[in-house]
Amino acid sequence: MNIHILTIGDELLIGQIVDTNSAWMGQQLNLNGMRVTGKSAVGDTKEAILEGVEQAGRNADAVIMTGGLGPTKDDITKKTLAEWFQSEMVFHPETYERIEGYFTKVGRAIPPAMRDQATLPEKALVLPNKVGTAPGMWFENAGKVYISLPGVPFEMEYLMQAEVIPRLKQRFEARPILHRTLLTACEGESNIARRIEAFEDQLPENIKLAYLPALGQVRLRLTATWPGPIVEDAEQQLAARLDAQKAALTALIPDLIYGEENTSLAEVVGQLLLQKGKKLGTAESCTGGYVAHLITSIPGASAYFPGSVVTYSYEMKHKLLGVPNALLQQYGAVSSEAVQAMALGALDALGADVALSISGIAGPDGGTPDKPVGTVWMAVADRTRVVVEKHVFGRDRLKNIQLTGTYALNLVRKFLLES
Amino acid sequence: MNIHILTIGDELLIGQIVDTNSAWMGQQLNLNGMRVTGKSAVGDTKEAILEGVEQAGRNADAVIMTGGLGPTKDDITKKTLAEWFQSEMVFHPETYERIEGYFTKVGRAIPPAMRDQATLPEKALVLPNKVGTAPGMWFENAGKVYISLPGVPFEMEYLMQAEVIPRLKQRFEARPILHRTLLTACEGESNIARRIEAFEDQLPENIKLAYLPALGQVRLRLTATWPGPIVEDAEQQLAARLDAQKAALTALIPDLIYGEENTSLAEVVGQLLLQKGKKLGTAESCTGGYVAHLITSIPGASAYFPGSVVTYSYEMKHKLLGVPNALLQQYGAVSSEAVQAMALGALDALGADVALSISGIAGPDGGTPDKPVGTVWMAVADRTRVVVEKHVFGRDRLKNIQLTGTYALNLVRKFLLES
Repeated sequence: MNIHILTIGDELLIGQIVDTNSAWMGQQLNLNGMRVTGKSAVGDTKEAILEGVEQAGRNADAVIMTGGLGPTKDDITKKTLAEWFQSEMVFHPETYERIEGYFTKVGRAIPPAMRDQATLPEKALVLPNKVGTAPGMWFENAGKVYISLPGVPFEMEYLMQAEVIPRLKQRFEARPILHRTLLTACEGESNIARRIEAFEDQLPENIKLAYLPALGQVRLRLTATWPGPIVEDAEQQLAARLDAQKAALTALIPDLIYGEENTSLAEVVGQLLLQKGKKLGTAESCTGGYVAHLITSIPGASAYFPGSVVTYSYEMKHKLLGVPNALLQQYGAVSSEAVQAMALGALDALGADVALSISGIAGPDGGTPDKPVGTVWMAVADRTRVVVEKHVFGRDRLKNIQLTGTYALNLVRKFLLES
Repeated sequence: MNIHILTIGDELLIGQIVDTNSAWMGQQLNLNGMRVTGKSAVGDTKEAILEGVEQAGRNADAVIMTGGLGPTKDDITKKTLAEWFQSEMVFHPETYERIEGYFTKVGRAIPPAMRDQATLPEKALVLPNKVGTAPGMWFENAGKVYISLPGVPFEMEYLMQAEVIPRLKQRFEARPILHRTLLTACEGESNIARRIEAFEDQLPENIKLAYLPALGQVRLRLTATWPGPIVEDAEQQLAARLDAQKAALTALIPDLIYGEENTSLAEVVGQLLLQKGKKLGTAESCTGGYVAHLITSIPGASAYFPGSVVTYSYEMKHKLLGVPNALLQQYGAVSSEAVQAMALGALDALGADVALSISGIAGPDGGTPDKPVGTVWMAVADRTRVVVEKHVFGRDRLKNIQLTGTYALNLVRKFLLES
C-alpha cells in the first residue's frame, strides 16, 4: 500500500520549522511495511489545502495530513476538509468531555475556544487525542483513506502509534515484516562496515541491513520481509531466520554493541547499576549537567543516582569536589589529573560507589594550541581504580556536549561490566 | 512570484534523513521576497520524478529541485530532466575542467565517473559548483524556470547564494515581504488568542499573524507583504507598518513576551545576568540537570554560571544545600518549604547572587493523591527575597522535565527584571 504525507502550514514553507514530523512518520510506516511514495507541504490557505489533498489522493491509498488543527484562527484544515468531504460540522460531546477532563486534571478552566476544538466534520471517525486537545480525524472516500492529525510532534506521534498504524494495518493487508536493531556506540560507520563486510555479503535477498548513524552512535537494523506466498506460521519462520542473522552479527562486534532496539545508553547504565547494587554520582564541567539529565531522563533513576555537581568554575571544583587548587593551577581544569581528582572527590561529595567526571572545552571559544576546542577529558572511578579517557571532538558546542554524553556513558558502562 | 521546492530521494520518504535543505531554502527565498507556495518529495524513480516536476510546475513560476545529481547509479535526476526537456546529453568541457581542478587541489586523480558528472543536458544553463563536483542546472520552459541542485547541504547552499537567488531576482520582479516574530512563554495558544483577539481582527489584509506553538512556548509571527504596485521605498514603508503592528501586539501582552526572532529563554536569562553583573546557581531535583544544561548550552555561560547541584536524594539536599532534615521530614522534598531552603542553600554552596531551585515529581511513578505526578515546586532567591511557584504538569516524564525548564527559566527572567 502506498501512502502520501501532506504537511500543512506556512511555517514549513518559509522554513521557520524543520519538518521532523514527516521523517518520523516515514520511519514508522516503513517499519510497519507501508510505503511512503510521496510527501508534500502546502500553506495555510483553503485553496492550497484543497489542491494538496486532491493531488495527494491521486497516487496513494492513504493520505496522512499533519498540522492546522489548533484552536486559533490560522488553523483552517478542519473546515476545509469538512467542505471537501461535503460534511456538516457537528459538536462532538465525547471530544468536549475529553478536553474538559484534560483541563480539569491540570487544574485549569476550559477555555471557550475548546467548543470549536470539539466541533468536527460529521463524516469523520474521531481519533481521540489523549495527550492534547485537537483530535485526529479519519475519513474514507472512494476506497481511499484520508487522515488528519495535529502538527504538534508528540500529539502526532501518540495518534500515529495508538490509532493510525493499527487501523491502517487492519484496513489494508500488511505483509509480514520484522526488524531487529543492534545499538553500537563510539565507532564510526565505515569502521563497522569493514568489520562486518563478510556478514553483509552472505545476507539473503529478503533480509536487509541498514546503518542508521547518529551523533557518536550507529544503529544496525536488520529487516526481513516474507519472500514467498504467505503461510500460516510465516511470522514465526521469518523471526527464526532473522534472529539467527542477528546472532551472527552480534558475534562479530560484541565490543561495540551496548543494547538492542530502543534502549538508550543511560538505560543500560541504569540497569547495570541496579544489578550490581551500586550508586553513580557525576561531576561535570563542560557538559554542564547534560549527562545528569541523560541519566535522570530514565524513570526510577533515583534508585541509583544520588546526585551530581556541575562545577563550571575552578572555585566550585575546589569547594564542592575538593580538587586541590595547586593541581588546577599546575595542570589546568582540562587535564587527566583534574578529572581523576574530580571523580575521586565526587565519590565522597555525592556518597557514590562509582563516579564519572568530565572536563573539556565545549567551544566555540576557549581553545589553545595544545588544548583545542573539542578537547574533553573524562574519568570513571570507584574506591579501587580509576580509568581515564581523552577525546578531541569538533568545533560545535552542542555537538561536543552531546558526543561527550555518549562517550562518557559508554565509559561508565564498560567500567561497570568490569567491576 | 511563486516557487515550488521539489526534493528527490528515497531516503527522504522513508525518513532516514530529515529534510533540512528545503527549510533552509524556504528561509532564504522568503528573506528575498520570494514565496514558497509548495514543497514536495518524490522517490528515485523516473516516473516519480517526471510526475513531481510536472505537478510542481503547474502552480509555480519556478521549481527548485535538490538531490539525485551524484555520480552513483541511483541518481537519475539528470537523465530524467534531459528527457523531460527533450534535450540531448552533451559533454561539457568547462565543467570537466572545473571538476579536474577540484581533484587536483585535494591531490587526487580524477575518477572515471567524473566524465558522467560533466555530461549534461544541452538545453541547461550550467551553474558552476565551486564546492563540489555536480553542477547546478537552470532550464527555461514555457515561461517557467526549473532549477536542479545537488542534495549535499553545503553545495546546495553555495549554489543558492551564488547563482540561484541573484538570477531569480533578476528574472522575476521580487515582491517585498517581511516578518517579525515575538516569543512568549508559559501561556497557552488559546489564552493568548483571547487576549489579542481585537488586535487580530484589526489587522489589514496584507499582514498575517501565525501562532507557532512548542512545549510551554508560543511564537507569534507577523508577516507583511507589499499590497499594491511597487514603489521605490516599498520595503521601508512596509517595515514601518509592520513594526507599528508589532508594537501594538507587544503592548497587549508584555508580560508574556520574553524575546524576539530566534533568541532562546536561556540566552535572555544569560544576557540579563551579564547586564546586571550577577551569577546564577541552580539546585535541581526532578529536572536532574536539565536546566543547567539549557543554561550551559549558551556560549560564554561560564561568565555568569559558577555551577549547579543536582540533589536527587534527601541526603544530598541536606549535605550539599544544608536543607534541614527536619524540614524534609515535615513537609517532604516536593514542597514550598523545601525549594525555598534549597534556593537559599544554593546561594552559599555555589557562591551565587541568584539561585534557582526545583523539586517535583517527574513521573511516571511517585505521585500521591495530594502531590500527583507532574507536581513541581520552584523557587528563585537572592539574599533579600524569595519567590516560589507551584505547577502541575502532565504525566509524561520528559515533557514534565522540559516544561519545568521553560517555566523555571522564565521565573528567573522575571525575578531578574524586578531586581
